Amino acid sequence: MDIVEQLTRALPGIVRTDAASLEACRTDRSGHLSSGRPLALIEARSIEDVQTVCRLATATATPVVSRGAGTGLSGGGIAGSGEIVLSTVNMTAILEVSVANQLAVVQPGIFNGDLNRALDEHGMWWAPDPASKEISTVGGNIAMNAGGLLCAKYGVTREAVLALKVVLADGRLISVGHRTVKGVTGYDLCALMIGSEGTLGIIVEATLKLRPLVAGSVSTIAAYLDSVDTGAGIAAKISAAGLQPALMELLDARSLEFLGNYTGQDLRARGNAYLLIQCDGAAAQAEAAAMMEIIHATGAKAESTTDEETANQWVEVRRQVFPSLEAAGTLLVEDVAVPRDAMTAMFDKVAQVEDKYGLMIPTSAHAGDGNLHPSFVFQGAEVPEEIWEAAGELFTYALELGGTLTGEHGIGLLKKRWLGDELGETQLLLQRQIKAVFDPDGLLNPGKVLDPLGQGGPAH
Amino acid sequence: MDIVEQLTRALPGIVRTDAASLEACRTDRSGHLSSGRPLALIEARSIEDVQTVCRLATATATPVVSRGAGTGLSGGGIAGSGEIVLSTVNMTAILEVSVANQLAVVQPGIFNGDLNRALDEHGMWWAPDPASKEISTVGGNIAMNAGGLLCAKYGVTREAVLALKVVLADGRLISVGHRTVKGVTGYDLCALMIGSEGTLGIIVEATLKLRPLVAGSVSTIAAYLDSVDTGAGIAAKISAAGLQPALMELLDARSLEFLGNYTGQDLRARGNAYLLIQCDGAAAQAEAAAMMEIIHATGAKAESTTDEETANQWVEVRRQVFPSLEAAGTLLVEDVAVPRDAMTAMFDKVAQVEDKYGLMIPTSAHAGDGNLHPSFVFQGAEVPEEIWEAAGELFTYALELGGTLTGEHGIGLLKKRWLGDELGETQLLLQRQIKAVFDPDGLLNPGKVLDPLGQGGPAH
Repeated sequence: MDIVEQLTRALPGIVRTDAASLEACRTDRSGHLSSGRPLALIEARSIEDVQTVCRLATATATPVVSRGAGTGLSGGGIAGSGEIVLSTVNMTAILEVSVANQLAVVQPGIFNGDLNRALDEHGMWWAPDPASKEISTVGGNIAMNAGGLLCAKYGVTREAVLALKVVLADGRLISVGHRTVKGVTGYDLCALMIGSEGTLGIIVEATLKLRPLVAGSVSTIAAYLDSVDTGAGIAAKISAAGLQPALMELLDARSLEFLGNYTGQDLRARGNAYLLIQCDGAAAQAEAAAMMEIIHATGAKAESTTDEETANQWVEVRRQVFPSLEAAGTLLVEDVAVPRDAMTAMFDKVAQVEDKYGLMIPTSAHAGDGNLHPSFVFQGAEVPEEIWEAAGELFTYALELGGTLTGEHGIGLLKKRWLGDELGETQLLLQRQIKAVFDPDGLLNPGKVLDPLGQGGPAH
Repeated sequence: MDIVEQLTRALPGIVRTDAASLEACRTDRSGHLSSGRPLALIEARSIEDVQTVCRLATATATPVVSRGAGTGLSGGGIAGSGEIVLSTVNMTAILEVSVANQLAVVQPGIFNGDLNRALDEHGMWWAPDPASKEISTVGGNIAMNAGGLLCAKYGVTREAVLALKVVLADGRLISVGHRTVKGVTGYDLCALMIGSEGTLGIIVEATLKLRPLVAGSVSTIAAYLDSVDTGAGIAAKISAAGLQPALMELLDARSLEFLGNYTGQDLRARGNAYLLIQCDGAAAQAEAAAMMEIIHATGAKAESTTDEETANQWVEVRRQVFPSLEAAGTLLVEDVAVPRDAMTAMFDKVAQVEDKYGLMIPTSAHAGDGNLHPSFVFQGAEVPEEIWEAAGELFTYALELGGTLTGEHGIGLLKKRWLGDELGETQLLLQRQIKAVFDPDGLLNPGKVLDPLGQGGPAH
């Protein structure tokens, strides 16, 4: 009996083998397409289902790609021929909300946005806010250690997860982390799982650290500036002054061009860069006033508001960037992060690489935490090698600045070739050995992030 | 040539073999004494010194115990016969403070308190604040994932470290983590190192995430209450209301008895429990007022102040707890953490165990995060087995409540026998395998936290 037959008998009704289901698993929002169609898609309903799939996969040496909503930007959830896809997207229950303990226990398939709407009535929220939050799952957010717009003030996903239940490649279930705020029992395998991109285990339940809703009104600032360097300089001054914006976003001139074409407004007439800031909490108005002073001291002009509708219009400009790029072709969103005071240098490098390769690289930045998204628009499904070369130059420079290849999108398939540049050979080998501890047969998300011991990579 | 001779030739002037130096390394603030005197103490001055020691140790199969200031409470930094001690306490330099990037790069031997005084002039601080901060090192804080009083609002050490340089058992140097706020390149080995208690590598440099100093005055609340249950109930209500005290400490009646004997004040005449709260930041006064309402609604009385001197007196009551216990005998401070709303149940269990064993177990709690310190005072150096039995009952109950053996002190030697109860056999084996990846010869801090593969523990 082949693996698909075995799965179908063991898990009747949840094993899909129709062409549409399988084709959808060949890609994600990176646009990358796997080499072939996977064998089956299993839509797990429970931890036991996931254990059953893993046991059968191990017994038959079949690779398993775990998948949430398929919104990844680095090809981490893509499945190819000979592989089975284990989806947790139907496991959407909120098992517990404890206001007293400021935590929620959830299944991995719930969408981030749906969770936050449910938490709202308890006066709580879960801080990770990737741009994809309305269409991405909590499990996927955890598997990628998702970031978003609010990280400088409210932290990344790693800081918002207390504990996980994880099914190992062979079907065994472990509980890692703690239900408590503190806990130092042994190695922090919960943190190790967060951002492991489906290569160490399948996340089947999460205990999330919640925050009380932030009280008071939000102050919003918008500024069209003469250059993105001015914007990066203002952002650096705001951070250096110890002010803590909830959100601080910066768009360059190219982004405004694409946005203008998309929305029909001549945004370039307003400036060569757009800076958007929001302050929340008890100090919001005072902090916004201090930021306006910093902006005015540079000679730039800015507007501020506490009116929600006006603020939403200003935020919408930022939200439309990626839709405007996607409307123009296939989109590759890069994701370097650099120390906050190196943002100007990174923007300058983007301009140099644009010139060298004759490309347009619209770039937006989470300016509060130095995370830039240089973006490439092209025609067709495959990223042209020239664009990878240009992106590679940006990666190398980000590393020279003390930064990283990927602030929040992960390595997946698309950045694997640069991983060793950042980690160094010794650490890369350690990481491959850790992979072998959890998944000795190399069955979980093979080919993603790093090569198993015995395949590719540096000598070992 | 034996290892001590080799070390002395390779590292002239920093290898101590005098009795006083070696005897001091046989214990820490847990009071536990190792079985014998270590071979040598090496006081490293640089990363290269640490690498040299590790290379020689690996070449001669000599165990290495890394050590900071020896303030650990679980025996994690204790060295015995046949072992060498690698101290980083002389590596105290602050290599960089970047206000713009809100980070500092430091050597591991600097004291937490000294670092924070140096950061103060930059308008920044490092949040971890173990009670030992004036006498404990940053490297030690990281090795133990130290907690302290401010964790509920400002997080534990793991949330305050961006990157580490680590020397492996064989002398190789790796850099883990990121200088940036975000970064998702491969597995999070920086988080794995934090709290690893010297068993995976030697921390030789740390890039710390700083915070801007909190502006405004601090509001302090003190209340003597009729029972510790009342205090735990108030603390739970404050958390459930979404209020965020910077510090919320609770002392039981026994603690007040010891404190009274030590300070000559009749604190028990004032109440059977003491609750201390501090609020900081822009919302401090409003939050303190809301907390006073919660307290008054229970029928209890409390005082509040924004006067610094009065506040210091109230805080001093809390600070004197452990000195008052140490004055009465040898002190074993236990360290369970439970979900916030289970604190009352945990205090009740302490009272039951007191009765059952005829012991006094003064207990203080970081009530903002559910971390309780049931404490045992006895005569002599060895913890009587009866006290371990009583402590074991508390551990078991904390686990039943969804809590942990250790909120902030670590496993070290003293809690090793209970580790498997919390982790389960599968996870314990994974942890031992991870240990083997980093330290295949089992030379780093042997016998601490977990047994190497091939020794003790469950089958593998």
